[in-house]
Amino acid sequence: MKPWDNIISEEEQRAYRAAGFGNPSGVGAHPALLVIDVQYRTVGTTPKSFWESIKEFPTSCGEVGWRAVQAIVPLLAEFRRRGWPVLYPHVAPKKSTDGGRLAEKIPAIMNIAEKGYEFVAEVAPREGDVLLPKKHPSAFFATPLVSHLIDLGVDTLVVTGCTTSGCVRGSVVDAFAYNFHVLVPSDCVYDRSATSHAVNLFDMASKYADVATAAEIMEKLRAIPDRPLAA
Amino acid sequence: MKPWDNIISEEEQRAYRAAGFGNPSGVGAHPALLVIDVQYRTVGTTPKSFWESIKEFPTSCGEVGWRAVQAIVPLLAEFRRRGWPVLYPHVAPKKSTDGGRLAEKIPAIMNIAEKGYEFVAEVAPREGDVLLPKKHPSAFFATPLVSHLIDLGVDTLVVTGCTTSGCVRGSVVDAFAYNFHVLVPSDCVYDRSATSHAVNLFDMASKYADVATAAEIMEKLRAIPDRPLAA
Amino acid sequence: MKPWDNIISEEEQRAYRAAGFGNPSGVGAHPALLVIDVQYRTVGTTPKSFWESIKEFPTSCGEVGWRAVQAIVPLLAEFRRRGWPVLYPHVAPKKSTDGGRLAEKIPAIMNIAEKGYEFVAEVAPREGDVLLPKKHPSAFFATPLVSHLIDLGVDTLVVTGCTTSGCVRGSVVDAFAYNFHVLVPSDCVYDRSATSHAVNLFDMASKYADVATAAEIMEKLRAIPDRPLAA
Amino acid sequence: MKPWDNIISEEEQRAYRAAGFGNPSGVGAHPALLVIDVQYRTVGTTPKSFWESIKEFPTSCGEVGWRAVQAIVPLLAEFRRRGWPVLYPHVAPKKSTDGGRLAEKIPAIMNIAEKGYEFVAEVAPREGDVLLPKKHPSAFFATPLVSHLIDLGVDTLVVTGCTTSGCVRGSVVDAFAYNFHVLVPSDCVYDRSATSHAVNLFDMASKYADVATAAEIMEKLRAIPDRPLAA
Repeated sequence: MKPWDNIISEEEQRAYRAAGFGNPSGVGAHPALLVIDVQYRTVGTTPKSFWESIKEFPTSCGEVGWRAVQAIVPLLAEFRRRGWPVLYPHVAPKKSTDGGRLAEKIPAIMNIAEKGYEFVAEVAPREGDVLLPKKHPSAFFATPLVSHLIDLGVDTLVVTGCTTSGCVRGSVVDAFAYNFHVLVPSDCVYDRSATSHAVNLFDMASKYADVATAAEIMEKLRAIPDRPLAA
Repeated sequence: MKPWDNIISEEEQRAYRAAGFGNPSGVGAHPALLVIDVQYRTVGTTPKSFWESIKEFPTSCGEVGWRAVQAIVPLLAEFRRRGWPVLYPHVAPKKSTDGGRLAEKIPAIMNIAEKGYEFVAEVAPREGDVLLPKKHPSAFFATPLVSHLIDLGVDTLVVTGCTTSGCVRGSVVDAFAYNFHVLVPSDCVYDRSATSHAVNLFDMASKYADVATAAEIMEKLRAIPDRPLAA
Repeated sequence: MKPWDNIISEEEQRAYRAAGFGNPSGVGAHPALLVIDVQYRTVGTTPKSFWESIKEFPTSCGEVGWRAVQAIVPLLAEFRRRGWPVLYPHVAPKKSTDGGRLAEKIPAIMNIAEKGYEFVAEVAPREGDVLLPKKHPSAFFATPLVSHLIDLGVDTLVVTGCTTSGCVRGSVVDAFAYNFHVLVPSDCVYDRSATSHAVNLFDMASKYADVATAAEIMEKLRAIPDRPLAA
Repeated sequence: MKPWDNIISEEEQRAYRAAGFGNPSGVGAHPALLVIDVQYRTVGTTPKSFWESIKEFPTSCGEVGWRAVQAIVPLLAEFRRRGWPVLYPHVAPKKSTDGGRLAEKIPAIMNIAEKGYEFVAEVAPREGDVLLPKKHPSAFFATPLVSHLIDLGVDTLVVTGCTTSGCVRGSVVDAFAYNFHVLVPSDCVYDRSATSHAVNLFDMASKYADVATAAEIMEKLRAIPDRPLAA
């Protein structure tokens, strides 16, 4: 059972398969984990329903976000254990000059309280992680992410965080275009719309990434041998 | 009635509005038209049902594509009449070195017959239009599109073509990140999945672009005064 | 007399002209000023000779930097008076994860004292200016500079700061590639090598930008009419 | 004896060393060769002096170009022997829409005869090489070069071709910013100005790349072990 099975009809799924979409792109030898926008502004400082949570931050996804955070915890621990890189693209506090089209389209996004920009403690960065403030949906757009990945010798990205239909989707499309292998653990990404979440997972699975549960993806990652130490 | 009203529930739409999404980003003074991937490979050489059409090209969307082509015709004519720029991002024939993740994810896309790469005659480019061969979903990725738009003094993009959930979506996200005003005429974009088409329109309308019918968008464009001639 | 006349021979200059290089690219209607890396790390906290100044910051250019700062002052004042945008690409304090090739090539650059990252007071940014921290030579690389310029409707860049052969050169090449009109006031850019400074000005004048004194460039800018207020 | 020793004074070189510039960035494990713009338009169809050669193509560098072509031959052969990737960024024939700032700055560049765009036979691409048409100085700007390099697992670039002060310099600065190890064989790059050639080599050696003769670079490359075959 895929997350989109109740929304994308069997006929539509058959059409995609008939046209040749949705093959696996597989896993490389050097993975990195992206934790995108897992800040209190996207889940609230405590788990609450969506409607309660947006009273604290209008950008919050509420409970679904906290469930995803719990699913990221063991995945992050596995990356720590293996010594694989973890990178944190995140939204920086907005300045008056940061408006542009964003301020027109979603004015509420310009006035989030400072606490909202803190990383959620359960999956927060530690010393040595790469922090990437960003101003646009994709973690690659106008950031040095690709330079870091080339420096680290990464060929595979596991993409977590939020929102599925926003910054996750935008980052996955760019990661695919840069020719990274992309894996999206469906239980580690979240969105304020269940429908949009599911359809974006379908779009990514069809064209850009391998979508599976965090448990399935960890299974695949376990098959990667340790990197030989540089001489 | 919006194209996504039967798929995104009223509760979900209310959630987006409550969180402050979906405001208009408006129209600038210098529009350009993008016609993305309107080649026979995406509609077939003649209008046929999806299932018949993919026998000719597996990448074809069939009849929905031909309906969109008909809707692009008057919009394109209006851009010609006003002397506004028209640009054609399009898929170039694949070479053996063009594989990467794309060849893994969608192998069928690597072997399209040459005729499939021709522009659909009804909306084909003419002398003086900018042609932009591309290898990745977004019309901006690894192409000189943004350099052309800066040279032309463009501040507003009307995005047409296909697929709604692929190259159109990717291009709209980048256009928004570059701070162009973005307009998506919902009847001028097409996709092989009606559900994904509708949800991608909803995503774009919520976060990145103003989505309306071609007729409504032409009405807005008519309000733009002619550009003064350079001295 | 051009800054490169004693270094690039008359024969070489004749060769460039014969091949058709060095024509003016002219001025547009909407200029912005870039002030690149004018921080104490590139001039020292007080004017001193190069050899004294590098004892404070190894990245300092010393006296030539202070002379350029003085030349930037009236140019900046003119931009303030006209209400034209001023943007500050600058080097952010280095973190342990920022090394890459830079830390190998120029290790000293990784350990500059915090004071070095402050803007030089004489030409420092004020509220409303765009601040662009960067990690690479070009002000465009991995920063949202081009998005800001599109949002501001800029078509012309006046590039000042340092070093002529480093971040100024890299930014000018990218600005040219993006199709902005580029003006380099030769007395407002500086470098630790007089030879490299002069030859980089020659390269830019031949291929990418119009190079002249700040006084000459201000004369050209005065011809630009005030921008009509948006309705 | 370095190529710049007669142009950059000993005092200036001492200043760069004192400030900590010019350390080696070294060689990685997976090299690729860039052959940039080695087309008849940059050397002429037969070796002639600069002044004779520009009568055929105003963009020709003449004899110095042919000497560099001879130096590229054994380097290219070594890359072929080892099975390492070779990529050809090159200038595509200009269309009327390709003007922009380039057409203003160097009008002669817009009207080169078709033969000028052919690759020089001695170092021409063969089946399986990546061909990258480009419109701007850097081989990375608005091309899929970085996507190809990520797909190929490349970490080191050897950059050859022309001109030293133009497309080579621009590509090297970007390659450095992307965190590739960059090697420039000084006898395999060429320019229409001997002074600018030498100073650009100095700039690159100081800040972005390791500059040495082709023979020295081949010696370093021989130390790289063969890549293990993928399982």
